[in-house]
Parts: sequence; structure tokens; C-alpha cells
Amino acid sequence: MNSLRIVFLGTGAAVPSRDRSLPSLAIQADGRILLFDVGEGAQHRMLQAGLSPLKVVAVFITHLHGDHVFGLPGLLQTMAMMGREEPLTIYGPPGLKGFVEAALELSSRSPSNPRFKVKLILGEDLRYDSEDYVVESFPVEHSPGSLGYVFRERDKPGRVNLDRLRKLGLEPGPYLRVLKGGRPVRVSGKLVKPEDVLGPPRRGRVVVYTGDTLPSERVVEVSRGADVLIHEATFTHELADEAHEKGHATAKEAAETALEAGVSLLILTHISARYRDPSQLYVEASRIFPFTLVAHDLMFLALRLS
Amino acid sequence: MNSLRIVFLGTGAAVPSRDRSLPSLAIQADGRILLFDVGEGAQHRMLQAGLSPLKVVAVFITHLHGDHVFGLPGLLQTMAMMGREEPLTIYGPPGLKGFVEAALELSSRSPSNPRFKVKLILGEDLRYDSEDYVVESFPVEHSPGSLGYVFRERDKPGRVNLDRLRKLGLEPGPYLRVLKGGRPVRVSGKLVKPEDVLGPPRRGRVVVYTGDTLPSERVVEVSRGADVLIHEATFTHELADEAHEKGHATAKEAAETALEAGVSLLILTHISARYRDPSQLYVEASRIFPFTLVAHDLMFLALRLS
Repeated sequence: MNSLRIVFLGTGAAVPSRDRSLPSLAIQADGRILLFDVGEGAQHRMLQAGLSPLKVVAVFITHLHGDHVFGLPGLLQTMAMMGREEPLTIYGPPGLKGFVEAALELSSRSPSNPRFKVKLILGEDLRYDSEDYVVESFPVEHSPGSLGYVFRERDKPGRVNLDRLRKLGLEPGPYLRVLKGGRPVRVSGKLVKPEDVLGPPRRGRVVVYTGDTLPSERVVEVSRGADVLIHEATFTHELADEAHEKGHATAKEAAETALEAGVSLLILTHISARYRDPSQLYVEASRIFPFTLVAHDLMFLALRLS
Repeated sequence: MNSLRIVFLGTGAAVPSRDRSLPSLAIQADGRILLFDVGEGAQHRMLQAGLSPLKVVAVFITHLHGDHVFGLPGLLQTMAMMGREEPLTIYGPPGLKGFVEAALELSSRSPSNPRFKVKLILGEDLRYDSEDYVVESFPVEHSPGSLGYVFRERDKPGRVNLDRLRKLGLEPGPYLRVLKGGRPVRVSGKLVKPEDVLGPPRRGRVVVYTGDTLPSERVVEVSRGADVLIHEATFTHELADEAHEKGHATAKEAAETALEAGVSLLILTHISARYRDPSQLYVEASRIFPFTLVAHDLMFLALRLS
């Protein structure tokens, strides 16, 4: 996997504002899309961002508050209208079942009766595996059963060290693929092991999405050394009491978490509609953790392979 | 009732396009809002149009295809977040119950657990009565149980005829309100009846919204003499076969309906995403019925009292 993009589809909280739609973000890995939360209007933003619902391979819901899930019925219906046949897997907390089933029941009345299967994998300890990456859930502190997700690209084989290759009297060739796959290979009668000619494995990229949460030690643990931590920051710290009462974190707390975890980049999202101008959130967080961005709708970020 | 506005919140069909959100329109009568269909993103458009969810007194759903109802959960949740206490009545076909209940069940998990009651009035022959107007459903030909709605303002008392008043030796005064209320009154010992001094009653304004439908004789009957007919026109007539197969009308057929019913104004809506430029639909319809508009998102129209 080489291309990895994060696209922010909705960066608001609770209710839409003029600038921010409801929570949803996409991780695009080699053209396939993983969706995290599907607030109302997510499919409109996907259209604006040029992301096709047919390319979504899995959906991850953090928790069952309406602002994070009420875009699901429309997205499923649009997939049906587009003639999707590939199954879709939705991960999330157990209570999601009734709502998704009621939505599918309505869709089944329509001429666009879905031809694709929706598979629900619900629980508190979820894991999605693909050849190139893994997504795992972790518990956060918001409402009962609320989850965050960590996206981990699998480590890549090291680059070929041409000097060492030459010292062994070898030329580059197709056998290098076998070595990159982790297996030894016999070349011109000589047994070559991966570590003989490859540099150290390159660490896969790691993106953490908290969903809604109070400041949480668990987020720190999961995020240690991550490339990107996407942390909710519903309020500034002067409203810390209100934030905590509602199970949310402040910009300051998100920055403290990023600092403690030693991530490369912090992106604040889930911004309350009261902040027309998000610079307060930025200033508060970047004083503590300088590598901070405040997400806006349709913002995207391409992540370089390390 | 004096002020009457129609606001188009979503004018697309089936799936959102870059320009058109999913079906929803508002009739604003003296500041109160009646919503007809609530496609996904309706609340975003309400925000853009400056229409408060707290001012919605009733919702009318035409049929149970997702593009017409999947904005309801988010709208109800936002009403709850805004602290709404006034009950909300939702009218529509019977199958709506499961979906609304599943959405409310999710909302009840949230800190914004609704404090207002949602009353569902479901059936095939629906009627909403207020002091100033009536909304009635009528059957249309689309999917089983599909409805259109007609909004009828109650007739207004005639204007005071000052000449007749003077001939009776009377001066204007508060007693005129009693006459306008339809009751006789004794003034300076003289019995005055409404018809003695008032002109003919002024006909209330009538707006018809078809929802999705094949061309229908029933729409013609209901729309006779209406001020505004809001008719679906999913396709142009060259796609008549596809339109009819899917239970839809063409722009030409909408215009023929308007002509036969003798309405004052035809507005085409529910425009397929294939028409980036709606002028084809306009040209086709206005050749038959000149007083035609093609709706666009956030278009609004103020209706004068006749």
C-alpha cells in the first residue's frame, strides 16, 4: 500500500453548523475507503470530495449518538441505487442493529432494493484485517460501549541495500520480491536471506481516531508514536466543566494527550457549532503541542510512507 | 394568516447531486413551518435557509422511500438538542413507525434525550387542521400507499366596503372584527350583518405537492384552480418509459397536468441527478404550460393573498 489519505467529511459536533457537517471521516488506502462514523450528510460530502460509495469497504461507528450514525441509511440507499454488489461490513457497538435493520427495511420497499449484503460486526473489541492494514477498536470514555479506532498499516519490508547486494556479487532481479516477502531465496547457487540485502523493515503508518471521549489514558497508550492522532476537541478549556459533564475533551486536553503519546501530528475535530472561528481551539492546543491542525470539512491530508 | 412562503430545501431525486439535496420542502405560514418530506440533509438546508427546527409544527411524509425520510432522525435529534418541548406531529404512510421508533431509540441514548413528544398519525387519508389552514393527503400513483398533500388556507372574510358603511351611517370601529368573524352585531341600535358591509370572502391560497407520482388524474382534480402545483418531474419526456417504469412523471406530463387543472403556477421538483442543467426540463414544460419554474435548492417563493 502506498497511497494513504485522510479526508474529513464532517467536523462538527451534535448539530450541523453553516461550515461543519456531522462527524465522518474517510481513510483512503490505495483507492479503497474506510469510513469512520457516518453523520447525516456524509454522502453529500463524499460527493463533494469525489469519494465513491462503491469504494467503501468497511464502516466503523464509534458510538450510538445520532450525529455519528444518522447518515448511514442514506449512504446504504445510495450504494443500492448505484447497483453495488460487493458486501459491506459495518463495525460498531451492539445497539446499532435495530437502527440499521429499520433503515434496510425501508430501503427494501424501494425499487433500489439492495443487492449487496450488509454484515454487522458489533461488539466492544473489534478488529478488521486486510492484506495491507489492520483496524482495531479500543474503549474510550464517553457513553457506555463507546469506541475509538486505530488504523495500523502493516510494516513494509526494508529497502534493498545496493551496496550489500554488490558485495555479495548479485545484481537486482525478480528474486528480490521473494526476499521482500520475508523468505530466503537461492540465487546463482547462493542462499540469500532477506536480512542480507534489505534494510530494516519500514514501520507502517498509524492513524488514531478517538471518536467522542473524555481525556483518556487509553488514548495515550494506543497513540504512542502514531503518525496522526485525530482527537475530538468539542470545546476550549474555559468550558472544561461542560465538556466533562457531556463526556468530551477540550483542545488543551487533546494537546496534552498528543504530547504525552509523542505523535507526529494532532488534528482536532468534533468542533462545537459555537466556534465559528476555530482559532481559539488552535491557539490553545498549539501552545502545548505545536504540530496541531484544526480539521475543517473536506480537508484532506496525504500521509507519506516513512 | 398573511405571510405564506414556500422554501425548497431539497429538489433532487434518489441520490444527492452536487447542486440538489434530497427531497424536502417547507411551507412557512405566519412564521410556523410545515415540512413536506425530510430527505437526508434537510436540516442542513434549513440552517442555510434560516428556518429553525423549533418552528416546525408538523411533518408530512409522502412515501417510504429513503430519499424522502432519511433526514428525519437527524432533524428529531437536533430538535432535542435545541431543547424543544412542543410536541411534533408526523403524518405519513403506516410503514414509517418502525424507522422513527428505531431512530428515537438511538436518540434516547444521547444526553439530548428528547423532552418533546413525537406523535405519529399514519394512514391513507390524513388531515391536519389549524385555525388558518388545512392540509389533506390524497392518493398518488407511485409505490403502495404513496400520498400527495394539498395545503389549503381557509377563506378570509371580505374587505370592508367603506361606501356601504357610510350609506348605513356607520363609522369604522372595533365591531368590524365581529362582522369579519362571520357574526352579526348591533351598532347604535342597528343590527348589521356581515354581508351588509363586507365584500365577498377572499379565497385562501392553495398549494399542492404531489410527492412522487405517475401522471395522475387525481392530481388534476385536487389541483383545480390551485395557486401553486409542485409536481415531480424526475425526467424529460424522452425518458418517459424509464419514468413510468419507476413510477415517475416527466416534465411534459407535469405541464399537461398543470394545464388541465388550471393552476396559476407550476413548479417542477424531484429532478434526477442526470440533469446538471435543468433547462431541458423547463423548455419541455413551458411549451405546454408557460407559468413554469424548475425548483432549485433554497429557492423560495412568497405567495400574495388574493
